[in-house]
Amino acid sequence: MATNGRFPNSCSLDVVGIGNAIVDVLVQTNDAFLSEHNLQKGGMTLIDEQQAGVLYQASGPGLETSGGSVANTMVGIAQLGGRAGFIGRVRDDQLGTIFSHDIQAVGARFDTPAATSGAATARCLIYVTPDAERTMCTFLGASTQLEPDDLDLSMVRETKVLYLEGYLWDSPAAKRAFIAAAEACRTAGGQVALSLSDGFCVDRHRESFLELVNGHVDVLFANEGEIKSLYQTDDFDQALEQVSGCCSVIAVTRGGAGSVVLSGTQRWDIGIYSLGELVDTTGAGDLYAGGFLHGYTQGEPLERCGQLGALCAGQVVTQLGPRPQVSLKQLAADQLS
Amino acid sequence: MATNGRFPNSCSLDVVGIGNAIVDVLVQTNDAFLSEHNLQKGGMTLIDEQQAGVLYQASGPGLETSGGSVANTMVGIAQLGGRAGFIGRVRDDQLGTIFSHDIQAVGARFDTPAATSGAATARCLIYVTPDAERTMCTFLGASTQLEPDDLDLSMVRETKVLYLEGYLWDSPAAKRAFIAAAEACRTAGGQVALSLSDGFCVDRHRESFLELVNGHVDVLFANEGEIKSLYQTDDFDQALEQVSGCCSVIAVTRGGAGSVVLSGTQRWDIGIYSLGELVDTTGAGDLYAGGFLHGYTQGEPLERCGQLGALCAGQVVTQLGPRPQVSLKQLAADQLS
Repeated sequence: MATNGRFPNSCSLDVVGIGNAIVDVLVQTNDAFLSEHNLQKGGMTLIDEQQAGVLYQASGPGLETSGGSVANTMVGIAQLGGRAGFIGRVRDDQLGTIFSHDIQAVGARFDTPAATSGAATARCLIYVTPDAERTMCTFLGASTQLEPDDLDLSMVRETKVLYLEGYLWDSPAAKRAFIAAAEACRTAGGQVALSLSDGFCVDRHRESFLELVNGHVDVLFANEGEIKSLYQTDDFDQALEQVSGCCSVIAVTRGGAGSVVLSGTQRWDIGIYSLGELVDTTGAGDLYAGGFLHGYTQGEPLERCGQLGALCAGQVVTQLGPRPQVSLKQLAADQLS
Repeated sequence: MATNGRFPNSCSLDVVGIGNAIVDVLVQTNDAFLSEHNLQKGGMTLIDEQQAGVLYQASGPGLETSGGSVANTMVGIAQLGGRAGFIGRVRDDQLGTIFSHDIQAVGARFDTPAATSGAATARCLIYVTPDAERTMCTFLGASTQLEPDDLDLSMVRETKVLYLEGYLWDSPAAKRAFIAAAEACRTAGGQVALSLSDGFCVDRHRESFLELVNGHVDVLFANEGEIKSLYQTDDFDQALEQVSGCCSVIAVTRGGAGSVVLSGTQRWDIGIYSLGELVDTTGAGDLYAGGFLHGYTQGEPLERCGQLGALCAGQVVTQLGPRPQVSLKQLAADQLS
């Protein structure tokens, strides 16, 4: 079968993501608020609807925008000109309408039917502190009701890469749906990519993630904290050594220190792009994965994939919210040509 | 009765606003989109729910934020440390919850009961073009169901200034509610302020506005286009001459050319504050009124009121959306001390 180096030419989609379909509520706050509400700075805490109500009540005014880690990545890929699809579940409510509109409006394919009963569309309260760090509290709502029946396996079989978030492991039904999809994708000649999502998420599901990473994932995304948590070490290089060789490609982000891309015995250290004042780190990891996977599915060399990821991440941190408000395609043409 | 120069000391509130309770959907777009959909650049068009659905479908991804002209003004006053109250109607839906939360979260008093039936919470599609101009399409929804019964007359009797938007004239029920409130406020010793809102709105209600301005309004806000439209003239100075003396205080904004404050035979020309790149003019007039009315109800000289208005407007145009994302109180302390 003819390929562009990595994938069957017959693929109608570049990347299909399965993830939580979430509307973000961005609230600018300070460290005292985080302490007062026992929120772990920089992390993601799961909350129920009642806790979400209490926290929201105590919060300052918000700015609402579609979010969700994998969904943000898919939007980045679509904005770069890639063919992206998303599978995730909203409720048939106003926030669900916003989520569906926003992802379709950038040209990503999204046709998971909205739930007509059960929990409301997922919301994530994102507290942005003056240092641009974001601290998240997520009510998963309708997202947890993603079932294997929701999977459009035709999308999964026709994509070069299937991408999922570790956050899905917090919902047993969504986890089952993902495993079924991953098998279908690989059988059709596609590859599977995974983001570890969050250090606390890795803590909750370490054994399961280790099993996945050892042989079921082709492309792994993690940040420094997550990869250290996966191998329960404080030594970054030791964690890299342990993960090296487990997947075909591994990309580890380190915030302001750039990122490291590993493949076999090769290693590339990628710098960051400073495109303006650091406003809000929400979506930085998601957009890194978006840029990387876009390059990867276009057959770009891995170093260039890392640079494209770093550029997209560099853009999104200069604005409030995880969905780029400028043309990433234009940005890439200007900065990487 | 003791006063601070203008108002009874017994007032428990500085400014109470009556207006449309709206959630904005900010969409970055280009002039071609406006032409294609026959939208009058810079204006506000009323649309029904079906038109809103069709336009939204055609729009790019949005950013949702609480809005509404008078509501934005009340938020500005609360953020400056003033005692603000708001009267307006939402539905008991997710967008209504967002609106109610955001205005209460800045400390403004808002307790109009949410409608339990009828149209959904009002939405305004705001198209922001690269020149930072905003073009609005509003589905008034539950806002039009504001009835005299919704009026908390105790709030209206205890405020120094009652502030309303010309947009209310587009809903006969809301207009009746306002007139009842204005009478109650003046009887209790308060003053009435009005914003003409929009040139097309003035076109729709010219006779009614002229009657109001001639004797029923103490403080009038307008922009250059609106005041010209009111007197059907292309000559700004002629319009100023005609309006002069109709109200105690008149403040006319002129975009980048600053603003003019008139009172009796006095006139002050106020400059603008350039605080950064011009991003989005949404809320500029609303925040000018907010800064002005805050100064006015604190007994500041009129020139200073105009400067405070110009400063708040200068801040809000440097960001996307009509609700300031920084502390206006701090800004005023830094820039006007």
